[in-house]
Amino acid sequence: MCNRKKSQKVVQLAFQEARSLKLVDFSKKQRQRGRESDTVLMEESKGVVKHVLLAKFKGEIPSDEIEKLIKGYANLVNLIEPMKAFEWGTDVSIENMHQGFTHIFESTFESTEGIAEYISHPAHVDFGGLFLPALEKVVVFDYKPTVFRL
Amino acid sequence: MCNRKKSQKVVQLAFQEARSLKLVDFSKKQRQRGRESDTVLMEESKGVVKHVLLAKFKGEIPSDEIEKLIKGYANLVNLIEPMKAFEWGTDVSIENMHQGFTHIFESTFESTEGIAEYISHPAHVDFGGLFLPALEKVVVFDYKPTVFRL
Repeated sequence: MCNRKKSQKVVQLAFQEARSLKLVDFSKKQRQRGRESDTVLMEESKGVVKHVLLAKFKGEIPSDEIEKLIKGYANLVNLIEPMKAFEWGTDVSIENMHQGFTHIFESTFESTEGIAEYISHPAHVDFGGLFLPALEKVVVFDYKPTVFRL
Repeated sequence: MCNRKKSQKVVQLAFQEARSLKLVDFSKKQRQRGRESDTVLMEESKGVVKHVLLAKFKGEIPSDEIEKLIKGYANLVNLIEPMKAFEWGTDVSIENMHQGFTHIFESTFESTEGIAEYISHPAHVDFGGLFLPALEKVVVFDYKPTVFRL
């Protein structure tokens, strides 16, 4: 897919995300659709699969090295077509239930097939060879988001 | 905040999400802004904090009980003002790095203060008293997403 098409796809995905978030809509109109207002309805997002990686970097990995790895991870969006979006962050939780994990990375794909293509892509394999040895622990979890709506 | 205002806020958040996803934009226009095309720039989302919970339910918890707990979790969006959106899913990964976790729950807040308010809210405390004992293991991770852009 050319970059222009990929860009259009990303915008489509963004609006899909926006639409699905709007499902949490408390408007009278929605309630009038014959639903009880206290009924919890949820529906699976169409065609979006999220790939979540929780990481704890080894203590000896210097912060500039961590930064380089994060940029390398983000750069996979440029190199692997089915990877549509990427975000990351460090833990700011106050409940002390983060089990030592320091970083989270969340990428978005259109399908589980897209994730399979990503996993076997040479750019991902090369990056994994640098990234995984820097981690003390890691969890990888893929899911098709089911969004809550009233 | 009344439901109408909350609804507007959710829509705003959705568009904020859409805008931030659009930052992963491969258009010529963006590259012409004097950035090298292989430069990785990332920026922290303004005012969004994600609250991610990875769970492994105990083997003896029946599936209808799990379903009830998931609905109870989703229903917190109705009860706790700073909780703006909720989605969940089960693991569909093929890498076998999910470390036994079976479910993920992701909620969206506007601030870390919002999460603090959520944590101490009676509805959350009550729900936690039912939910946590059903889990064999759990990770809770809060982060301010930094979104990748070219």
